[in-house]
Amino acid sequence: MQAKSLQWAPSPGLRVGVETSSLSQLAVLNLPGGASVNGLKARGLFVVKAMEVEGSRTASLKGHAGNKNGSLLSSVGNSTNIKWHECSLNKTDRQKLLKQKGCVIWITGLSGSGKSTVACALGGSLYHRGKLSYILDGDNVRHGLNCDLSFKAEDRAENIRRIGEVAKLFADAGVICIASVVSPYRRDRDACRAMLPAGDFVEVFMDVPLQVCEARDPKGLYKLARAGKIEGFTGVDDPYEQPLDCEIVLSHKGGACPSPCEMAEEVVSYLEDQGFLQA
Amino acid sequence: MQAKSLQWAPSPGLRVGVETSSLSQLAVLNLPGGASVNGLKARGLFVVKAMEVEGSRTASLKGHAGNKNGSLLSSVGNSTNIKWHECSLNKTDRQKLLKQKGCVIWITGLSGSGKSTVACALGGSLYHRGKLSYILDGDNVRHGLNCDLSFKAEDRAENIRRIGEVAKLFADAGVICIASVVSPYRRDRDACRAMLPAGDFVEVFMDVPLQVCEARDPKGLYKLARAGKIEGFTGVDDPYEQPLDCEIVLSHKGGACPSPCEMAEEVVSYLEDQGFLQA
Repeated sequence: MQAKSLQWAPSPGLRVGVETSSLSQLAVLNLPGGASVNGLKARGLFVVKAMEVEGSRTASLKGHAGNKNGSLLSSVGNSTNIKWHECSLNKTDRQKLLKQKGCVIWITGLSGSGKSTVACALGGSLYHRGKLSYILDGDNVRHGLNCDLSFKAEDRAENIRRIGEVAKLFADAGVICIASVVSPYRRDRDACRAMLPAGDFVEVFMDVPLQVCEARDPKGLYKLARAGKIEGFTGVDDPYEQPLDCEIVLSHKGGACPSPCEMAEEVVSYLEDQGFLQA
Repeated sequence: MQAKSLQWAPSPGLRVGVETSSLSQLAVLNLPGGASVNGLKARGLFVVKAMEVEGSRTASLKGHAGNKNGSLLSSVGNSTNIKWHECSLNKTDRQKLLKQKGCVIWITGLSGSGKSTVACALGGSLYHRGKLSYILDGDNVRHGLNCDLSFKAEDRAENIRRIGEVAKLFADAGVICIASVVSPYRRDRDACRAMLPAGDFVEVFMDVPLQVCEARDPKGLYKLARAGKIEGFTGVDDPYEQPLDCEIVLSHKGGACPSPCEMAEEVVSYLEDQGFLQA
């Protein structure tokens, strides 16, 4: 975290600005041709992560390019000192620390299909391999972050969006984030997938027949829905849209469900194959 | 994660139910006097974390007690099989894995006071000690999770509430979560503090005079606010309520500001003293 320094004579057209990305604060520094960075000639746009900018000669500027490790301090006269403090820590660094890759395991399926059970078994299995995971449970998040949301259509979509956004933050932190949510609509799940880099969203479909889920009815919700006491209940009077092309399907085969541990191991194998269990 | 089993003859008044807490799914099992768990006599309420419940004899029941390590499988006739899969992983386990304690470092202060800079320096310093931290930056979160929020009063409060809730999830995951947000109102910060166990919310006040922040004006926002182009800007036409009793004050002393690294080290020392840097 030691700051390096840069001195250069700015051209009249020099523009320096700050912009933010969705995950880290960026500063964009447009170096005129002939400017030198740490003794090397440099030209073009440089992105420097989260720094302090002192002085008022800031203007908006969009663009990005290399210089991941650059840390700049420039002196453009006394009144326009610009001090850049590098914050080079990123997802890759955190992954190295954790010896794993951050990602989102999105477990979708009907109420009673065993999402939470598999999520827990998966968390345990990863833990025993020394891997850090964290479960975002749809029900539990509704007690905290999403306590302001109802079950009407737009709030259900917002519920999923927020879980997706939080899962993305956890993945960026290097954590294997396990989201366990009914998430009945394809478009909502796909929107969460789109938040992440390709491959980092692992959709797991709990393929368990409605009758089986309803027979289990762990929370007594199907009973309430059938009695008309819950409206818009997925599988009863609201549709569940099965994934068309998800990464993993955990199936209830011929009436016998694999054990949660077996299902969790299927996901772990996938993660291992895809290189998520190493940095 | 190996399931243990329990068999018992239910009393007529036996009630089994599932409830959720804000962070983990719980099942509450009311054992009648004389029931035996793993060969031991047991009586009263048991809490078993996130399990699968098969069968329909579920009813709501509130209460909680010990049995952190219990994992139960009961057979109450064919139609009411209840299978409990333990998910004993909790914050303590994750902390052991990470060799640190999850908490929230809440950095508050005016725009331009150096919150992001200190957050980054702190993240770097912790990283070099092998500790996992993650920065929630107010600006950045507004591009993702809170992109639906405006800057009107109720939305600013909601912005802080959500950041607090997410920070709480990160702390529960065992991560040292660094929130870097202006968070001008005491009541909003206190509400976030109240979400966490006592001691786990570390409020850090960037005590930098308005004039200094305004002279820096890293994003050009003070200029816009003074020109009337931003309304309700903290420090200009909206108040900043200083913490009355926060854990750490990082002061701009006599015109000279300590370096970001020095300020970060002050926070690290506090975390070390409070035992957060070990499990």
